[in-house]
Amino acid sequence: MATTPMKMSDLALHAGVSTATVSRVLSGKAGVRQTTRDTVLTAMEELGYSRDKQVTTKTEIVAILVPELSNPSFPAFAEELDTLLFSAGHANIVCAAGSAGTSEVQHLETLQDLNIAGLISVSGTPADTLASNEPYRRLISAGVPSVFINGYDSELDGAFFSCSDHEAVAASVLHLQSLGHTRIGLAVGPERYLPTQRKIAAFLSLGFSREDIASTIYTPEGGQLAAARLVDSGHTAIVCGSDIMALGAIREIRSLGLDVPDDISIVGFDDSPLMAFTDPALTTVRQPVRAMCEAAVTALLAALKGAELDRTELLFHPDLIIRNSTGPVS
Amino acid sequence: MATTPMKMSDLALHAGVSTATVSRVLSGKAGVRQTTRDTVLTAMEELGYSRDKQVTTKTEIVAILVPELSNPSFPAFAEELDTLLFSAGHANIVCAAGSAGTSEVQHLETLQDLNIAGLISVSGTPADTLASNEPYRRLISAGVPSVFINGYDSELDGAFFSCSDHEAVAASVLHLQSLGHTRIGLAVGPERYLPTQRKIAAFLSLGFSREDIASTIYTPEGGQLAAARLVDSGHTAIVCGSDIMALGAIREIRSLGLDVPDDISIVGFDDSPLMAFTDPALTTVRQPVRAMCEAAVTALLAALKGAELDRTELLFHPDLIIRNSTGPVS
Repeated sequence: MATTPMKMSDLALHAGVSTATVSRVLSGKAGVRQTTRDTVLTAMEELGYSRDKQVTTKTEIVAILVPELSNPSFPAFAEELDTLLFSAGHANIVCAAGSAGTSEVQHLETLQDLNIAGLISVSGTPADTLASNEPYRRLISAGVPSVFINGYDSELDGAFFSCSDHEAVAASVLHLQSLGHTRIGLAVGPERYLPTQRKIAAFLSLGFSREDIASTIYTPEGGQLAAARLVDSGHTAIVCGSDIMALGAIREIRSLGLDVPDDISIVGFDDSPLMAFTDPALTTVRQPVRAMCEAAVTALLAALKGAELDRTELLFHPDLIIRNSTGPVS
Repeated sequence: MATTPMKMSDLALHAGVSTATVSRVLSGKAGVRQTTRDTVLTAMEELGYSRDKQVTTKTEIVAILVPELSNPSFPAFAEELDTLLFSAGHANIVCAAGSAGTSEVQHLETLQDLNIAGLISVSGTPADTLASNEPYRRLISAGVPSVFINGYDSELDGAFFSCSDHEAVAASVLHLQSLGHTRIGLAVGPERYLPTQRKIAAFLSLGFSREDIASTIYTPEGGQLAAARLVDSGHTAIVCGSDIMALGAIREIRSLGLDVPDDISIVGFDDSPLMAFTDPALTTVRQPVRAMCEAAVTALLAALKGAELDRTELLFHPDLIIRNSTGPVS
């Protein structure tokens, strides 16, 4: 893993041909003159380059897995990870699981075939208490060091970096209470997800009850539905499990003829890109994306050099970003 | 290309072991018992599976290249392409070029090593009149069919699907003129980009002059700068080259103490996700992402089966989505 493998480009340089030509010779494709083919094969011998080594060149690639791209929080993680991996000299590819597209499990199978060097998974199956982490286990036991952001499974031999859901909920509630709100609701996605369970546990620990919680799905529509329920039951402020849900909640509140924040205050979660541009600009809890990605990449790079991964989950402190979707209780 | 290659999973099934074990045997890794190793090697012989075929399994992967993930328009293209490729049975990986991360050229080098089956590039170097398309040419001549969305180079042997910039600008201007605006400005990114050149040409053909155009960069900050210039020179409406620029323009106009749309009307371009949630909800031109992606995937699938790609650029009709950032001239 930590060796510096010979690349096709090295071979191309030595043979005085293009990398494309080397690739064609290696894959046995037509369209290469016999003399050129001989030159490449001779260069291969001289440099001790073999097909096996060609496979080794691929071990420099790190795969980034994200659950979807439509929530802007995930492209933000992917972009930050790319920047950090790039400056560390690693090529990377992004695999995004779509609800109607390729699943996480299918991506992991593809990655196994691609012989990747390492893996960083954002909000993957380790964040889903009902999903099997077997595909990750297989990759890890095949020697692919894996690091997880916002997901945790004590039985996986990886490293774990998560945003503290407890602190996120506590900061949101404290802010709303300081504005005079007492009827505060929590709008989250399905309870199968670990961050959801943690947000609910944090919320209940602050003295709220099950009736103050609406568990729907992590989309604008999920936010609408949760807001409808919580407003109907007399809540004046809603802490949302994602910015996307918060935007849906705002839309629902307006369609009820109410105003944000004059009638109902809304807090998001993620501070994903563009949230400063929403109507109203969203008060939200910022995940420390940069710091989390830096820790994940640092751990992965060490593992690629042979270090053991520390299985302890490292929790990151989020910041409350106060904008215009929260105000004094009316 | 069009053959159905044997997969590691087929071999695993035949040998009665996991794909991970097959992978370890093939890559010569430790941690596999000799009896297991023999079982896999026997199965390989029985099925006529060779290392060369292992490489062939990788040809099923289609790579999606996007320039960045921070403009939500690009994740939207990537997600749509994933959905379509997945339903056609193709695995895919996404390569996102970041300003501070991996460049498009570096991604293309990695893809060459990965022996991908095909490529769909969104707003890549063929959209940049100053960039070399040599890396694409190399991949194409190595037998990788390539399809381009929002980029065109008549000398590249690919297929091209673009949103009509002319229609986008014409529809925006017509809408603003119907609201009484005559002092209309155009805010775009650098002129090196083909879509920028086309938007400028369309704008000039409608009777506007160079003084009505501010060419900056495709970011919120670029939008701010362009809006400052155009408002300063007396324009009452601005057609922006991207939604992101439009959001920056709105921010700038407000910081000048003016209102959108009461004082200045703003039109975006892309209708990227979340634009219905901005303040004010953005009037913008919707790229027909789904239709463009369907055409691109259809062309690529045909090429993977051996069809010639038609080099003609197919232009798609965009729709004007009227929301709240445009209003009557004051």
